[in-house]
Amino acid sequence: MAGKRIGIVTGGGDAPGLNAVIRAVVKTAIIGHGAQIIGIADGFDGLFVPGGTRPLTLEDVRGILPRGGTILGTANRGNPFAQKVTAPDGTITVVDRSDQFMRELDALALDALIIVGGDGTLRIALELERKGCRVVGVPKTIDNDVGGTEITFGFDTALNTATEALDKLHTTAESHHRAMVVELMGRDAGFLTLNAGVSGGADVILIPEIPFLFESVCRKVTERASRGSKFSILAVSEGAHPRGEDPVYAKAGDAVYVPRLGGIGAAVADVVGECCKTEARVTVLGHVQRGGGPTPFDRWLATRYGAAAARLAMGSAFGRMVALRNSAIIDLPLAEALAVPKRVDPDGEPVMTARGLGISFGD
Amino acid sequence: MAGKRIGIVTGGGDAPGLNAVIRAVVKTAIIGHGAQIIGIADGFDGLFVPGGTRPLTLEDVRGILPRGGTILGTANRGNPFAQKVTAPDGTITVVDRSDQFMRELDALALDALIIVGGDGTLRIALELERKGCRVVGVPKTIDNDVGGTEITFGFDTALNTATEALDKLHTTAESHHRAMVVELMGRDAGFLTLNAGVSGGADVILIPEIPFLFESVCRKVTERASRGSKFSILAVSEGAHPRGEDPVYAKAGDAVYVPRLGGIGAAVADVVGECCKTEARVTVLGHVQRGGGPTPFDRWLATRYGAAAARLAMGSAFGRMVALRNSAIIDLPLAEALAVPKRVDPDGEPVMTARGLGISFGD
Amino acid sequence: MAGKRIGIVTGGGDAPGLNAVIRAVVKTAIIGHGAQIIGIADGFDGLFVPGGTRPLTLEDVRGILPRGGTILGTANRGNPFAQKVTAPDGTITVVDRSDQFMRELDALALDALIIVGGDGTLRIALELERKGCRVVGVPKTIDNDVGGTEITFGFDTALNTATEALDKLHTTAESHHRAMVVELMGRDAGFLTLNAGVSGGADVILIPEIPFLFESVCRKVTERASRGSKFSILAVSEGAHPRGEDPVYAKAGDAVYVPRLGGIGAAVADVVGECCKTEARVTVLGHVQRGGGPTPFDRWLATRYGAAAARLAMGSAFGRMVALRNSAIIDLPLAEALAVPKRVDPDGEPVMTARGLGISFGD
Amino acid sequence: MAGKRIGIVTGGGDAPGLNAVIRAVVKTAIIGHGAQIIGIADGFDGLFVPGGTRPLTLEDVRGILPRGGTILGTANRGNPFAQKVTAPDGTITVVDRSDQFMRELDALALDALIIVGGDGTLRIALELERKGCRVVGVPKTIDNDVGGTEITFGFDTALNTATEALDKLHTTAESHHRAMVVELMGRDAGFLTLNAGVSGGADVILIPEIPFLFESVCRKVTERASRGSKFSILAVSEGAHPRGEDPVYAKAGDAVYVPRLGGIGAAVADVVGECCKTEARVTVLGHVQRGGGPTPFDRWLATRYGAAAARLAMGSAFGRMVALRNSAIIDLPLAEALAVPKRVDPDGEPVMTARGLGISFGD
Repeated sequence: MAGKRIGIVTGGGDAPGLNAVIRAVVKTAIIGHGAQIIGIADGFDGLFVPGGTRPLTLEDVRGILPRGGTILGTANRGNPFAQKVTAPDGTITVVDRSDQFMRELDALALDALIIVGGDGTLRIALELERKGCRVVGVPKTIDNDVGGTEITFGFDTALNTATEALDKLHTTAESHHRAMVVELMGRDAGFLTLNAGVSGGADVILIPEIPFLFESVCRKVTERASRGSKFSILAVSEGAHPRGEDPVYAKAGDAVYVPRLGGIGAAVADVVGECCKTEARVTVLGHVQRGGGPTPFDRWLATRYGAAAARLAMGSAFGRMVALRNSAIIDLPLAEALAVPKRVDPDGEPVMTARGLGISFGD
Repeated sequence: MAGKRIGIVTGGGDAPGLNAVIRAVVKTAIIGHGAQIIGIADGFDGLFVPGGTRPLTLEDVRGILPRGGTILGTANRGNPFAQKVTAPDGTITVVDRSDQFMRELDALALDALIIVGGDGTLRIALELERKGCRVVGVPKTIDNDVGGTEITFGFDTALNTATEALDKLHTTAESHHRAMVVELMGRDAGFLTLNAGVSGGADVILIPEIPFLFESVCRKVTERASRGSKFSILAVSEGAHPRGEDPVYAKAGDAVYVPRLGGIGAAVADVVGECCKTEARVTVLGHVQRGGGPTPFDRWLATRYGAAAARLAMGSAFGRMVALRNSAIIDLPLAEALAVPKRVDPDGEPVMTARGLGISFGD
Repeated sequence: MAGKRIGIVTGGGDAPGLNAVIRAVVKTAIIGHGAQIIGIADGFDGLFVPGGTRPLTLEDVRGILPRGGTILGTANRGNPFAQKVTAPDGTITVVDRSDQFMRELDALALDALIIVGGDGTLRIALELERKGCRVVGVPKTIDNDVGGTEITFGFDTALNTATEALDKLHTTAESHHRAMVVELMGRDAGFLTLNAGVSGGADVILIPEIPFLFESVCRKVTERASRGSKFSILAVSEGAHPRGEDPVYAKAGDAVYVPRLGGIGAAVADVVGECCKTEARVTVLGHVQRGGGPTPFDRWLATRYGAAAARLAMGSAFGRMVALRNSAIIDLPLAEALAVPKRVDPDGEPVMTARGLGISFGD
Repeated sequence: MAGKRIGIVTGGGDAPGLNAVIRAVVKTAIIGHGAQIIGIADGFDGLFVPGGTRPLTLEDVRGILPRGGTILGTANRGNPFAQKVTAPDGTITVVDRSDQFMRELDALALDALIIVGGDGTLRIALELERKGCRVVGVPKTIDNDVGGTEITFGFDTALNTATEALDKLHTTAESHHRAMVVELMGRDAGFLTLNAGVSGGADVILIPEIPFLFESVCRKVTERASRGSKFSILAVSEGAHPRGEDPVYAKAGDAVYVPRLGGIGAAVADVVGECCKTEARVTVLGHVQRGGGPTPFDRWLATRYGAAAARLAMGSAFGRMVALRNSAIIDLPLAEALAVPKRVDPDGEPVMTARGLGISFGD
């Protein structure tokens, strides 16, 4: 009897550990269950283009464990329920191509489809499941904003990259008496900035969950200077935002970001430089945070997720997402995992611990 | 009213993150509670020697967050209940100096003593508590063998060091058609080797919890060679041990380790080299695994542990150990944490996952 | 007989390895010659403020070898020949305080002054020498733009940081079909960008020495896309500049930098994104490139420089700069070293080699 | 007219940067000259086995720049002039198969053969040239023992790995009052140990070029302890050797290595532990030093070597080796480069500098 056919797709923004998931799925399903694995290229796009799917063999996954990126490619825009189509005249329409997607999927005759992605991709997975697709979800995010799981792979690697940048700024800020701002990823969730800020010894941490006042930020920098610490390190989420009543913001509105270097990091550097009469510099790490080989933590977690997803697929347990709880791999209904997005609790222990160390959140 | 006086001591083998704990205790207790912190040098030894204790100020902990080691020093042998004393003629006696220890401690007039250490040090903490000392425990181990907590700091850094070594051997083993053995720390618990082995793409993992057969190890290496993979990577815990009925061991006994390079890693390299007619080389990482600056994960965890321990000490919650459970910092009775030492479950999901990837445990 | 008194000062922008120089000077001069070392704080500023100088002992330099920054502090603006003075009303005047500087220096009764700095600081050293100061120069720069020496410390560390960022972007660019721009340090000299670009596998390298055309840059990205490589990596010096006749530049002038994210990196990302109909993202590494512990190469070179400078100071060989030539430490007149600033040769072997690999310089 | 046919082979021990050379040769020769490249697998062995050669395309070298190892494989024993042949009965004979080698080479109709290797491999290259083979040599060694060039690729990466290990031991040695010994590669040349020792802050450096006395080594460790530094770091080349008159050696002879952990590192740890009444531990880094991705320095140098070798091959300049002199890529006759092997000068500036810092060479 032939083994099962399992599809695998990686969607959404890049995160270190995707290749480790793919490898674990392929090895676990082929070695242990004699399954066939079909890889879908470039997110869900692969189902709509000729040659967008291919069998994955043990040979295909050799040596990919420590490598960043995904051998399948990924895409941010391939939502089959709302796909952007560009007409010859340049106009863009959004169309629901989920029926075609299901037909293409049927043609592949898969017994299960493993979908690896962040919050957005997993919501698509849930919709596909409701249309009858036999999905297994694997959470992935450098923001750590997926519910239902303690943590997902990608976060630890991004955290290492961000903390290393803070470490490097520390030495040079100390020698030079400067304010150093680092803008980090995180539109809606501040886990990466909070964690990197504490681990990298930041003095100010600005995150989306805690709107800030420019005035408080400047006060902290000035206080430090008056106590003899002539440098300050500020870790700022790209999604950090001043409070409505902030005088700088009340005056300039969203334009506070515009005349300056473009992002909130640059705006903070600009305001701090002026108010505190100090040199302020900004670093924008950008996509560097999504790249690089995964840390051992992320390799380990991604491998266990991939193996668990393969076992769920072989055992026909669909509509579920693998997750980490108290060091154990569990699985739970996708719908439950996605019910509430994960955010930093402004009153939780981690923020309280950071405040106890003297760190300002600008509030 | 003057603040409380809190003592802090670091004991046992080195682990990256000790300085982060000390810093968090000092900052949290001084900034938030106006406490005084007394550091005890060189494990418990500091209480027995003149000048062995000193106040720790905010200035003392500046810049130590990313640094390995401990500014207090540590010592493996300073158990006050069983202290080695060397007489002038060289003979060594073991004496119980716990009464003197308690007197010295009384003289310091501490409101609480925070003890940071591994299984051994925490057992001393428990005995001290039974003698009336107001202790708070903070778990520390690169082996991850302390019960009651999901994980402790030091492990992640050691894991990074070990995995990096495996990564490097991978490239050179591939080019050279060799068997590469890495001996890693872990006398009783194989977490570090299991995790590094999976994360570093090892083909064979030998750990204390799963006694092995040299024959099985050689079979795995030979099988790989016969399938065209001319190299193999073997990750071996220093505490890995052949089964009693193993023919090599049955013949040579513990001497199997002796004529060879000294450790089990070298013994494995030696036997594999002979049986599989291949070049086999050994790397002994040794104390490199205990050194280096802590990873962000370990800094974050150590900082939260230190802050939580300071809060327990200020709140007079004694006889307890801080711990991590499902991403939250909790505390539990020391006695409960130490009741059962943590070991790799030979039938658990992580080992099953590793086997599913085709990794041999030599059994 | 008392030993000599040697002063040491570090000036200009930060560069990893400054502490290694200080340590080598102190150890070599004290251990071998019984000298006294006087450290001057915060660049030349330390001579103008009370408490701005202090003896440096062996204890002061313990453990600083692997640390970034400088224990002496540094300052960009402390040119004694042209010092900015801010009046109470906020107006800034530039005054020549070199006579006061010489008097302060005389008061210290130094036998020699070791000045560690980049092109700017070393030019001040030359002026001081002409005023009678017994200087020994040590070149330092992350830009590698100091003449007279093959290379100086700081460059290799900055190169590692920059290349690591390129490596990380590589993995994520491949998965995502994007153009990734990294803006690197280098106002006048493109060594860092050239070297990091080649080492990090960039497709386009833009440096100050080779003015570029936006059109050529876009053509390269488009060509790659048409050959199936949907991603491109662009390494851009902060001092890279479009040619005068460039149509984008001719139209917008220097404003090409303004409405965009502020720097040339952002301008390139912006133009490429529009022209090539691709997602383009920018990373601005900023001062991260000046920070971090020095690489072994930089520690080794900085140590040898420091030791050689100490020997020159003890041997009363003044007005000279230490340098590296063909793996040997030499010394040459400061004036000779500073005669011609070092720049990338647009027709030299390194650029030719890069072109031969298919890299575009946008010209 | 068809382009030229260029062969390339990598021989000897592994060194990070081999892939960068291969990539630069392939890209330079194909893009610039329309050449065909033939890769020979597993050192010279590839010429003797079916399927041991294959064309290398631009696609084959994509993404290999940052990777350790060599996509061609390498082999230590494949000297065509003295090849080990194992008879069915297990006896090994050494035979000269260079005539067969030349015939196989003729059959490939190569216009040139680029040979990348260390001292041993380059000597074979020289012999092949004398037999009429049109060779171009590229030096490669982690030991830096090839003459005619300032440095070769591989050394800087190995130096980073070794220094990082020393850095890690430093933190843990400080906390624990221990002597830590690291055994590093280098049978005949001590460059790696000297450089890593100085860069990693070692207290004792033992290299092949300076035979040592156990007594001097112990004296240094004891002196440090008596001055309050309770730890010492010792960097030991695998080829370091006690002097003939050393009492420990005079008594035990080469057996000094045997009852101990096998290598000189373990022997030093053993003797120091006994004499200095301290805990002494050994780390044997082994092949970890040959692995890992190349540093930017090594990628840059390897790339320039590869491009220069391709240009020499296209220009029919045979019997020559590429080299680095004062930052420039040059080429010189192979015979000249190999005339004198490179060794650490016991009286040179680097050793003098190290001594001036207080480092003992045990002599």
